Amino acid sequence: MKQNSKKIAITTGDPYGIGAEVTIKALKKLQLPKENVLLISNYDVLDYYGGKDLDYDVVEIPLDAKEVSAGKNTKAGGEFSFQSLRMAADFVKIGKVSAIATAPVSKEALHLAGHKFNGQTEVLQHFLAHDNQHAEMLFTANDFRVLLLTRHVPLKEIVLDKGVIEQKIIDINNILKKDYNVQKPRLALCGFNPHAGEDGILGKEEQEILIPVAQKLQKQNIDVTLPLPADTLFIEGANAYLKNKPLPFDCYLACYHDQGLIPIKTIAKDKTVNTTVGLDIIRTSPCHGTAFDIAGKNIADESSMIVAIEEALNH
Amino acid sequence: MKQNSKKIAITTGDPYGIGAEVTIKALKKLQLPKENVLLISNYDVLDYYGGKDLDYDVVEIPLDAKEVSAGKNTKAGGEFSFQSLRMAADFVKIGKVSAIATAPVSKEALHLAGHKFNGQTEVLQHFLAHDNQHAEMLFTANDFRVLLLTRHVPLKEIVLDKGVIEQKIIDINNILKKDYNVQKPRLALCGFNPHAGEDGILGKEEQEILIPVAQKLQKQNIDVTLPLPADTLFIEGANAYLKNKPLPFDCYLACYHDQGLIPIKTIAKDKTVNTTVGLDIIRTSPCHGTAFDIAGKNIADESSMIVAIEEALNH
Repeated sequence: MKQNSKKIAITTGDPYGIGAEVTIKALKKLQLPKENVLLISNYDVLDYYGGKDLDYDVVEIPLDAKEVSAGKNTKAGGEFSFQSLRMAADFVKIGKVSAIATAPVSKEALHLAGHKFNGQTEVLQHFLAHDNQHAEMLFTANDFRVLLLTRHVPLKEIVLDKGVIEQKIIDINNILKKDYNVQKPRLALCGFNPHAGEDGILGKEEQEILIPVAQKLQKQNIDVTLPLPADTLFIEGANAYLKNKPLPFDCYLACYHDQGLIPIKTIAKDKTVNTTVGLDIIRTSPCHGTAFDIAGKNIADESSMIVAIEEALNH
Repeated sequence: MKQNSKKIAITTGDPYGIGAEVTIKALKKLQLPKENVLLISNYDVLDYYGGKDLDYDVVEIPLDAKEVSAGKNTKAGGEFSFQSLRMAADFVKIGKVSAIATAPVSKEALHLAGHKFNGQTEVLQHFLAHDNQHAEMLFTANDFRVLLLTRHVPLKEIVLDKGVIEQKIIDINNILKKDYNVQKPRLALCGFNPHAGEDGILGKEEQEILIPVAQKLQKQNIDVTLPLPADTLFIEGANAYLKNKPLPFDCYLACYHDQGLIPIKTIAKDKTVNTTVGLDIIRTSPCHGTAFDIAGKNIADESSMIVAIEEALNH
């Protein structure tokens, strides 16, 4: 870790999902010193999911429900999720925490509570971005890294914008140098269409958007590939990851959610961490959702939350 | 193999790509009896790529070029590719071969030659389909199977049609029983949007198309899931494949090209075979393309062509 005295905020996410359970289990396994952790949650929620004996500072968020229960999208759960993130952001702003690890929330619950965000990344962008900062979604499993060029958008509504993509690639290039100690990041750009458009036969986004952007950035000495067919692009890196060898690229740039998340999750499973980069602090999150179907049953796996907390402490 | 006396047609694909080279290398490694193979190619092409000493029957396709060379899209190469497939189909129709293994062709070269097909599957569908038959693209690596519900289409132009998807699922259910000896196929349906649409927040295709189709088929006793988030759907199966254990599903149904091909290729690499099912015969193909950039250099890897030929002989 860069500094052992680093304090991170941990939110327990939607109180009706598995967030509190995996947070509690992770903290019990990790046995972190008390000064490293600020828990943003609610005593009733923590008690309900088996966290009565945790000894960390807790900032309480009110839960507007008669009693805690599990397994469903509710307005109360969405409001609690939202206020937890707002509180975490407030502690960042006053310099009391230097990273955030967040357990999963439900977008539907956020929407029920009137918060029309598509995910925690967007909420934190809203509260924390300043001076043209853009929150970016980076998924990591050790040195296997995938940046999403577009995020939680219906597939048919994806807009690839030249200027936005150019800026994202410049940003991730800088972030990899600054936060991940990569001297000269090697970036692999996924094509948008099957076979990266196959010279325009299977779509024009490569010729009209991705190739010009990549060529422009190459001239600026950024080591990014032209758009490559995504179905074969990850083979070598996945193989290297599984064999613990150096990967051919420091980051893969995916045009949309599933294109980037299918390979990293399929290969790295619950070692995948969702990291928000591009703000003053990083925020990490496990790669799974609220899992309402198994919430409250004490059978959720805390592996990914453990890696998320470790990653937050390590940067 | 079901029958040792089975004869398959093998096309060498685009003469300017690596098709002939990997076919020749594969046949030299496999050492198949002469009566199993009908090679559809051209003596100049075979000679150029090191196949002078192969001892199989060759049906010659004319190549309209002064001399054979490698590495580019040409009208002559596209015409040769197309006529090779037409010839293979003719041998199927007269019952002389019972499967086809095809080396890769270039769609751009096909188009240069005036054949506006998006791939070999479409060409074979054109020549061989009868009585409402539909050629389907199934990718396999042992028992890891992925069916594409849509194929070589620009991502923005994908149309999910209820009737088409319903028919494809019924077809693959029957094909798995008939050709793959799966008693009661377990089919996993990928969501189209991120998080399978997350209850409509991230897209409507699940609610409007995929869920109604799946529910209708479930009532008809077809074991298909509701649409599931594709980024996590493959994790368990990939893990099982790598450990040589039984997979949780007999076939994954992907809504589009990269959604299905990223996971199987990333996991199974050159063991992935592209199989056309739904016609009277199956046709197999390696999972790579023409690789013009390395054509003629004698460095192409024949592994996937070997598996493709074996798979054609085994069904």
